[in-house]
Amino acid sequence: MNLKEHVAIVQDWPIEGVEFKDITPLMANGEAYTYAVDEIAKYAEQKEIDLIVGPEARGFIIGCPVAYKLGIGFVPVRKEGKLPREVIKVDYGLEYGENVLTMHKDAIKPGQRILITDDLLATGGTIEATIKLIEQLGGVVVGCAFLIELAYLDGMSKLENYDVLTLMRYE
Amino acid sequence: MNLKEHVAIVQDWPIEGVEFKDITPLMANGEAYTYAVDEIAKYAEQKEIDLIVGPEARGFIIGCPVAYKLGIGFVPVRKEGKLPREVIKVDYGLEYGENVLTMHKDAIKPGQRILITDDLLATGGTIEATIKLIEQLGGVVVGCAFLIELAYLDGMSKLENYDVLTLMRYE
Repeated sequence: MNLKEHVAIVQDWPIEGVEFKDITPLMANGEAYTYAVDEIAKYAEQKEIDLIVGPEARGFIIGCPVAYKLGIGFVPVRKEGKLPREVIKVDYGLEYGENVLTMHKDAIKPGQRILITDDLLATGGTIEATIKLIEQLGGVVVGCAFLIELAYLDGMSKLENYDVLTLMRYE
Repeated sequence: MNLKEHVAIVQDWPIEGVEFKDITPLMANGEAYTYAVDEIAKYAEQKEIDLIVGPEARGFIIGCPVAYKLGIGFVPVRKEGKLPREVIKVDYGLEYGENVLTMHKDAIKPGQRILITDDLLATGGTIEATIKLIEQLGGVVVGCAFLIELAYLDGMSKLENYDVLTLMRYE
């Protein structure tokens, strides 16, 4: 299946010069969405994963159905002020802007094998921050899965020591 | 399965007087999460649903795996400024605070049968706003599914004309 047919390209959003990849048409198409989730689940099945972790909000859209398919749990990474119990946090840079990500302190037990999911690998800032949170709690990142890689932003350089799956690549 | 065992009660969060129901322990437990998704999917299977719609971000956590299980698409309802293409919008009141919700204008075709999912039914403001967006586009809301109902906030009174499933009820 050519998943790119289901991605809408939006010029100059959210700021001028950014060519935004909108995955909502892909998600709205049952066939394309199922295919994408199944591809990531196949990748995950080889890795004996204990938990899936995804940053809000589009990381949930990918990670939650993969967790369901594998019969395992999902841990959300959220912006500051969204998680109600004790959290750990990390500052990070984005393709545009800065932010703080948090995770519940009891979300991961040392040694648990983790797959990270997100819709898109851009500069890699969000994923790098997510890895820091997981490793701070003793989790082992055994893979990172994305629908989309923006190769021209070189996020892969931040993930040299990790195994990565991307379903679509834009040069 | 007693799903309530997997919900953490957090006092005075996000503001004093609110007893927050934290579903992250439920999501992190593969058995509980699978059970909850399967219960909602069973409900949905009786209703010949075309699409699932869920408000960000916790509505994604429930709706996305249900959509995957049924092999259908998922449409996100998001806060203002998050969706990149042309949107319709609605103002709404929350248990605490006010907000605007948006949906892509091309997300739903007239006559499509929709299930709405969210983690929690509180005052019903979010769900009422979501219904307005769906109906404005000609969608038919055939069901609303929640993990949790806070009965004391009487959100059900806003949903008298709709079919509702809730898996946990707090008096």
